[in-house]
Amino acid sequence: MMQISFVDIIEFIGTFAFAISGIRLASAKQFDLFGAYVVGLVTAIGGGTIRDVLLDVTPFWMTDTIYLIITAFALLWVMVFSKYLVKMNNTIFLFDAIGLALFAVVGIQKTLDAGYPLWVATIMGTFTGAAGGVLRDVFINEIPLIFRKDIYAMACVMGGFAYWICGRIGCDSIVTQVTCGVCVFLTRVLAVKFHVSLPTLKGEEEHHK
Amino acid sequence: MMQISFVDIIEFIGTFAFAISGIRLASAKQFDLFGAYVVGLVTAIGGGTIRDVLLDVTPFWMTDTIYLIITAFALLWVMVFSKYLVKMNNTIFLFDAIGLALFAVVGIQKTLDAGYPLWVATIMGTFTGAAGGVLRDVFINEIPLIFRKDIYAMACVMGGFAYWICGRIGCDSIVTQVTCGVCVFLTRVLAVKFHVSLPTLKGEEEHHK
Amino acid sequence: MMQISFVDIIEFIGTFAFAISGIRLASAKQFDLFGAYVVGLVTAIGGGTIRDVLLDVTPFWMTDTIYLIITAFALLWVMVFSKYLVKMNNTIFLFDAIGLALFAVVGIQKTLDAGYPLWVATIMGTFTGAAGGVLRDVFINEIPLIFRKDIYAMACVMGGFAYWICGRIGCDSIVTQVTCGVCVFLTRVLAVKFHVSLPTLKGEEEHHK
Repeated sequence: MMQISFVDIIEFIGTFAFAISGIRLASAKQFDLFGAYVVGLVTAIGGGTIRDVLLDVTPFWMTDTIYLIITAFALLWVMVFSKYLVKMNNTIFLFDAIGLALFAVVGIQKTLDAGYPLWVATIMGTFTGAAGGVLRDVFINEIPLIFRKDIYAMACVMGGFAYWICGRIGCDSIVTQVTCGVCVFLTRVLAVKFHVSLPTLKGEEEHHK
Repeated sequence: MMQISFVDIIEFIGTFAFAISGIRLASAKQFDLFGAYVVGLVTAIGGGTIRDVLLDVTPFWMTDTIYLIITAFALLWVMVFSKYLVKMNNTIFLFDAIGLALFAVVGIQKTLDAGYPLWVATIMGTFTGAAGGVLRDVFINEIPLIFRKDIYAMACVMGGFAYWICGRIGCDSIVTQVTCGVCVFLTRVLAVKFHVSLPTLKGEEEHHK
Repeated sequence: MMQISFVDIIEFIGTFAFAISGIRLASAKQFDLFGAYVVGLVTAIGGGTIRDVLLDVTPFWMTDTIYLIITAFALLWVMVFSKYLVKMNNTIFLFDAIGLALFAVVGIQKTLDAGYPLWVATIMGTFTGAAGGVLRDVFINEIPLIFRKDIYAMACVMGGFAYWICGRIGCDSIVTQVTCGVCVFLTRVLAVKFHVSLPTLKGEEEHHK
């Protein structure tokens, strides 16, 4: 009855990777199993939930249990393989980048379908990809990582830019979405590989504390 | 004209107990009176507000001033009785557990009435009971307590489970709600009394900082 | 085609001042350029966004790019003039107080127009003026300043009170809004000038940690 597409599978992998990142950071802070599950879930679905609230549609996870189930599997995975997870960091990083790329595409497309212009869609794509990680860091009481290190949310903005280019040169919907996703993924992976960071502002206030 | 039911009275007591917990923690952090009031209010109404935003209905406190007034009384109470509040910890704990139980029932019932399945309702019940405390801890810049200690949010999940059981054996609405509330209350009280906690995951990341 | 009113210009100045406060605090925490931009944006539009979500209308910034553009200018401003910003603290403080006053008026009026009573409008005016700063402080992992120092959110509540007085003595719409704005502005400026703070509650819990 229900048909699972290639995009669904990629999205599930992204959810899984995001949930694992939340669960691992929660574990490092001595959260109990339930707390770790909640943080994993928030990391995976938080961004899309904020997007859906702003777009005034029903949050996507409220119509399908699959996201809760995937997060439960992620928790099980971390419990069973915790000793090997450090060795799998590269794999998890790749999954996370794939998830980021796909979440950004989903967020952009959903917002465009709701009738908003591309600049709103780009912001929503960035929320979808990156806001879950910000909520995660707020819950574990850390300064959100994405504001300080690497290119992360910025990669989603690049995806919106790719959308715009594709629209200008008249690509069809599939090509546009694939190009956008690849652009987000490559921006993220290359930035980490070559240690590309955005510059920081000099914080003059520090001397006045 | 307005009729106040038994459930209303219990809900007011729960609001009062939640507000007191927020005000006391804010006071310990040197918040001013207004800040303490805001944190008390957020603790009392934050969970239900998130629920109502996700369900896309008007937040419950926007149609009735009673929640603002109860929080004001809670602030007054803490100001007047601050010296005796420590001795009243057990009483406050019981009020808090009653509030948790009733908030969970209200959240579950409201979500079911909106046409969602029980698993969404259980999540909403958990939000209603526990999210206010999470917001409180974020505002006072602490790691949310419920993720680390005792059974708290988990008690709301047990309430959802009780709902499911009652539905299977064909209980009527009142019996179901009472059973759910009692289940949440007992889970919470017994967990604290017997120091039952969920296990924590071993956090492998700590060694790599 | 589009006409920019006096109120718009004041609102843009307020947005600019709010964005600068976010960007400067983010810089002091070593956020990168993108992170600083996001924190500036959240400070400027966060309060109004929460208001619009609670009122169930489309968030105001999703229909007009001007807020993104103003925040970009604020970022540029901080980059170029960072060395002189400390000397401009008084000017920035005045802009911020003007922004607070105008945001409060906008929030109150928009909520009244949506059919809610004045006490809800006062809360929404306070959100509009002060919630952006709370989100900013949560993101940079500090205890929200407004809960601890000076009269800030309280000034918005005074504005709601001025609205009520004006309504009772039968002022027209313009007079009411101006009185409200002036009241918020003066409360804020005088409180800072004369170091007026609300009292804090004695936090008894500290001795029991």
